[in-house]
Amino acid sequence: MEHVIAEYMRQHRTENLNQLKEWLAIPSISALPEHNDDMQRGAQWIADHLEKIGMENVKVYETDGHPVVYGDWLKAEGKPTALIYGHYDVQPVDPVELWHSPPFEAEVRDEKLYARGASDDKGQVFMHLKVLEAILRTRGTLPMNFKFCIEGEEEIGSANLPKFIEENTELLSADVIVISDTGMLDRGKPAICYGLRGLAALQIDVKGANSDLHSGLYGGAVQNALHAITEILASFRDGNGRILVDGFYENVQEMTQAEKEAFAALNMSEEPLKKQLEVKELFGEKGYTHVEQTWVRPTLEVNGIWGGFQGEGIKTVLPNEAHAKISCRLVPDQQPDEIVEKLKRHIAAHTPPGVEVSVKLFDKGAPYVTPLEHPAIQAGARAYEKVYGVPTAFTRGGGSIPIVATFDELLKLPVVLMGFGLATENFHAPNEHFHLENFDKGMETLAHYWYELEEALQKEESAV
Amino acid sequence: MEHVIAEYMRQHRTENLNQLKEWLAIPSISALPEHNDDMQRGAQWIADHLEKIGMENVKVYETDGHPVVYGDWLKAEGKPTALIYGHYDVQPVDPVELWHSPPFEAEVRDEKLYARGASDDKGQVFMHLKVLEAILRTRGTLPMNFKFCIEGEEEIGSANLPKFIEENTELLSADVIVISDTGMLDRGKPAICYGLRGLAALQIDVKGANSDLHSGLYGGAVQNALHAITEILASFRDGNGRILVDGFYENVQEMTQAEKEAFAALNMSEEPLKKQLEVKELFGEKGYTHVEQTWVRPTLEVNGIWGGFQGEGIKTVLPNEAHAKISCRLVPDQQPDEIVEKLKRHIAAHTPPGVEVSVKLFDKGAPYVTPLEHPAIQAGARAYEKVYGVPTAFTRGGGSIPIVATFDELLKLPVVLMGFGLATENFHAPNEHFHLENFDKGMETLAHYWYELEEALQKEESAV
Repeated sequence: MEHVIAEYMRQHRTENLNQLKEWLAIPSISALPEHNDDMQRGAQWIADHLEKIGMENVKVYETDGHPVVYGDWLKAEGKPTALIYGHYDVQPVDPVELWHSPPFEAEVRDEKLYARGASDDKGQVFMHLKVLEAILRTRGTLPMNFKFCIEGEEEIGSANLPKFIEENTELLSADVIVISDTGMLDRGKPAICYGLRGLAALQIDVKGANSDLHSGLYGGAVQNALHAITEILASFRDGNGRILVDGFYENVQEMTQAEKEAFAALNMSEEPLKKQLEVKELFGEKGYTHVEQTWVRPTLEVNGIWGGFQGEGIKTVLPNEAHAKISCRLVPDQQPDEIVEKLKRHIAAHTPPGVEVSVKLFDKGAPYVTPLEHPAIQAGARAYEKVYGVPTAFTRGGGSIPIVATFDELLKLPVVLMGFGLATENFHAPNEHFHLENFDKGMETLAHYWYELEEALQKEESAV
Repeated sequence: MEHVIAEYMRQHRTENLNQLKEWLAIPSISALPEHNDDMQRGAQWIADHLEKIGMENVKVYETDGHPVVYGDWLKAEGKPTALIYGHYDVQPVDPVELWHSPPFEAEVRDEKLYARGASDDKGQVFMHLKVLEAILRTRGTLPMNFKFCIEGEEEIGSANLPKFIEENTELLSADVIVISDTGMLDRGKPAICYGLRGLAALQIDVKGANSDLHSGLYGGAVQNALHAITEILASFRDGNGRILVDGFYENVQEMTQAEKEAFAALNMSEEPLKKQLEVKELFGEKGYTHVEQTWVRPTLEVNGIWGGFQGEGIKTVLPNEAHAKISCRLVPDQQPDEIVEKLKRHIAAHTPPGVEVSVKLFDKGAPYVTPLEHPAIQAGARAYEKVYGVPTAFTRGGGSIPIVATFDELLKLPVVLMGFGLATENFHAPNEHFHLENFDKGMETLAHYWYELEEALQKEESAV
């Protein structure tokens, strides 16, 4: 990469950040129907920006859910093509009172950009655009061909993207998919993520009597929906953090010895994490380190629960309804459908007398692991090292990007997860932010990457 | 009672109901601070009405919480005095969307008066006023002396009434306390309640990490506050409905054989209750009938629970906070303070690693049993029989009127619970209502009662 590209990015930094703030101001919360218009605005904004930087064939594709934005630049004849995937939807912002600045009014404090979506994933998608813009403006051309696929349903399980991909395999055909939606190991420590956990999410609804009841008149003789749901939820896990759902661990790949050693070599001790989270102790499945627990072990988490009286003071009610949302993070070779069935059987078997339980499926995605040796991944590691000056760690991610497995399945392409977020950046929580140091270095890394990648993929082809 | 009194009440029925609707329109919800002004208005309304019917020394006494309304009529020289206790505060109305008519716009449908407080307890307090008014207007005098004590904190545990009673024992001195805040056995089946359960209510707050976390990044390695609270709540009870809190049943009086037989003789089968509540089966402590479970056995109910994401769809969050409200119904000789200590010990012992738990005490009241043979109770039974034409059942109540135990302790007076509500009237739930049949017959019964009571107490005195 020539110096002139980096210089261009430096000169346009303020302008770039102001543009990003515009996008972050659109509350594109995919989970909440009242934000449907904002989803359209969020999609249109990035479509317009793709055109602005020189992409062609830009189009906002309607789906049965939120739209998908596409754009490409295919003028590097004979060169390989990268498909850049990202998402313009963001998580809900509640509890909004815990934000120190409004979630949709991006604010830079202490060289961090605070806003919902700053890191996950608008900030990182935006970097990709600005890197290609800088190369085009300074070099007049790009080292390879590019396609963008930016969706609006990542935070709610990408329900409509598989159909879009299936119907547009030609449009989306490429040599590699690059996604920046994961994190670095720590400040100054770049990482390439070679595996992700999958997801299976459910809502459990418990119904008892036909009305809330007076706990004095009926208490003791009628099943309480809240008791019932706590019994069901408590039955999922033992005191050692092991999931008690029958067959839950059946298809779980155990770590290889090499993997175990590689993770241990990262020296990620518990202490900084305990300090960061302000907890006296961590808690997870016995027999695994906290790194192993989050990267290669499956989980079952209660994401939300509600029922009965939540106001101030006391209301001596015997509630007739209770609700909970749960989600499992899955690891290879657990299959979401298989896990959902096992969860349903467990729930049915653990439903106490006097209530009816129904289960609603929300969301699922298969886990994914990509071969470490792939040239596209090795090229990424070299690009990081050039900018950050330290060796790139190879990690697995605890989160889920269900669509990664779908890309793998439908397009048969290697996926490279080059993320620039930090674990401390509160994505999915109040006060999400993005370190601007990684905004700058990340863009430099990506600029290097496209040249490294073009070279690596060409070499591979000549080798073939 | 002379016919003229009943006739007077019939003639003034519409006028009376319209007055009651005015009072019911004041949303005097003691639990919610935003209704503090309504509490003042609710108190003032009944104070004004006490004056209107001819009571004297009427005064709204301020307390550290909501005010207490007093009024008396003491012109029956040499005659006994009844203290009539009731409350003008009502329960919250949520979920308000389940009401078929607005909770504070009383509406008569199918000879039932629908409104929050229609049955519990404004409707029943109001009946007492209208009975004395009818006697005064038709006879010019009352058969005995009367005092009213109408408080505004019954639904939140009557925290300030004990102090008021202690400071005003002379003002409140009487021969008997009469309370209409309980129910009949069924339509057309009057009952006098000779025992009530006590109450101990707590809020449990669980705190994990310093922020909600991303369930992908941290899930599996960090304690989830919702898991923790479900474990605590599930630990309270076994599959047979027995409370597992250490020593919980230690001081529980077992039923006498006579009591067991008396309850069985009431022939209260499970079927109508199951039909009413639309449940396939009841659920309660094994080895006891549903009547015994609600009248003489203690309970522990979860009244409310909340934490994490409650919106539509899914948010893959690992929540750092969870909250629950629980309350126990207590029976003689359980003491609320003793039970609260045992609950706290249980919660501490069942708190899983990685979270901190705090407990906030809301509300407590001792259980109470009054001797069946007392002439004031027997007089009540006779009054009911005269109007309803069937024998009066002697029951115990599953609910709590904590102040009953306080009256017993502070004023050393017998307490007569003559209630006119029905168990199906949804008090504490949406669509609270009151059968007007019992509004009419109840007032007739009370009119009889004061003459019966005066006679019975005079006889008792001459016997002594």
